[in-house]
Amino acid sequence: MTVHLVGAGPGDPDLLTVRALRLLETADVVVHDRLVDARIMDLIAPWAERIDVGKRPGAPADAQERIHEVLVAAASRAETVVRLKGGDPFVFGRGGEEAEVLRAAGIAVEVVPGITSAIAGPAAAGIPVTMRGHASGFTVVTGHEDPAADRHLDWDALARLGTTLVVLMGASRAAAIAERLLDAGMDPATPVAAVQSATTVAQRTLRTRLADLADPELDLSVDAPAVLVIGTVAGLDLTGDQPLATSHDADLIVHETGLQNLVSGNWPTT
Amino acid sequence: MTVHLVGAGPGDPDLLTVRALRLLETADVVVHDRLVDARIMDLIAPWAERIDVGKRPGAPADAQERIHEVLVAAASRAETVVRLKGGDPFVFGRGGEEAEVLRAAGIAVEVVPGITSAIAGPAAAGIPVTMRGHASGFTVVTGHEDPAADRHLDWDALARLGTTLVVLMGASRAAAIAERLLDAGMDPATPVAAVQSATTVAQRTLRTRLADLADPELDLSVDAPAVLVIGTVAGLDLTGDQPLATSHDADLIVHETGLQNLVSGNWPTT
Repeated sequence: MTVHLVGAGPGDPDLLTVRALRLLETADVVVHDRLVDARIMDLIAPWAERIDVGKRPGAPADAQERIHEVLVAAASRAETVVRLKGGDPFVFGRGGEEAEVLRAAGIAVEVVPGITSAIAGPAAAGIPVTMRGHASGFTVVTGHEDPAADRHLDWDALARLGTTLVVLMGASRAAAIAERLLDAGMDPATPVAAVQSATTVAQRTLRTRLADLADPELDLSVDAPAVLVIGTVAGLDLTGDQPLATSHDADLIVHETGLQNLVSGNWPTT
Repeated sequence: MTVHLVGAGPGDPDLLTVRALRLLETADVVVHDRLVDARIMDLIAPWAERIDVGKRPGAPADAQERIHEVLVAAASRAETVVRLKGGDPFVFGRGGEEAEVLRAAGIAVEVVPGITSAIAGPAAAGIPVTMRGHASGFTVVTGHEDPAADRHLDWDALARLGTTLVVLMGASRAAAIAERLLDAGMDPATPVAAVQSATTVAQRTLRTRLADLADPELDLSVDAPAVLVIGTVAGLDLTGDQPLATSHDADLIVHETGLQNLVSGNWPTT
């Protein structure tokens, strides 16, 4: 009995690893998050048991402990258990805690890395997280914590660092994050991109500047799931099929890659 | 004609994406780096043209420009050109520049993300780059730059940031990086892991502390290719099959996952 902590990648099933695909096709039990792409769920063998442990808003405080119990129980009755997580199992998402609990219960654990949205999300919008002349490194954090109350991360250091900043799950706190970085002295003209639903048909990219993202009057709505990219690379589009539409009036650049409008307002796109 | 910038991942062919595997099997031309794993090279179709553009020590200063010329020429004579790069094409490795040159030449570019060693290297040694109670983010830089002369990165901010620090290509400058972080006030007891040849049969992990890595008398040799992980997560091993061998004398933890000894000295491993 082994529990395989498998990264499902950003959404596109072609971005599964070969190992992940093989495990999904042969697993006896798949314990999955709520947000794993339906096209990836379709790859699971029809006879496999599927257990949805995705946390909903208002989930009980002990939801993570319940997931641990489900995993330990599954491992005791099945040969091959896949714990399927969006992105990479060791990039947020609490895969580390799950591995720790399983090992403590005497259960073998394999980690199968997945393509993280932190890199593939920006890439899907033509944005490299590192680039000569732009950024010689990148930092990945989540938007789950309120930046004004975050004790773990030094936001002042973050603003000075000189690396590209990538914020996963940053949709709801985008404005607060921008405000915190401005307070710490980051250049208000720093380009920002919000890549929403990256690598899916609903992918849309909002491009703007740090100052505009923080501006409550502009109220740029960023829809979850979204990856925020903050840094000069966010102004690049190295793979897009059409040139960027630039609005000099609003100092706002909007690039649509999907079907819907990016911003709730009526922004000029030419 | 399209050039596909394809990430080969950290080495293990099972960590290729499904899309990367399909492209390797069908490409007319594969332009590859020197260090792509032989098992991955074996997946290329026998009839495909292979062009090795790996830079050797002492390569001419215009080596990158020559790669651009090779890519543009290949795209003009072949339908499917794969530019195969270790790890992820947009994490260092100059994929951004190649995409920029190709697009300027009117050539379509697709980026196929790969599993980056920055996350999969630590994971292969049982180390999560993020973990509750340890790190709520991670920063990735390269060891190519001399930290004492690096103008792009604020090493003082890096030392204070509170995220896990991952250094790619950090083998040769490991001691200099440790020294720079100590100068900036990072805790000398901070755990460090150097994961060498991650995800290959030669994988070996050296575990130590920041102060010991910087100590010239200890002269801990880190062999390339190596991923350095600096932060409390570096003290974890969440997936290993045997418990860590700990030396309290040397405050040094050595964990062998391969065949050879990790350090040149005769460190106690029990």
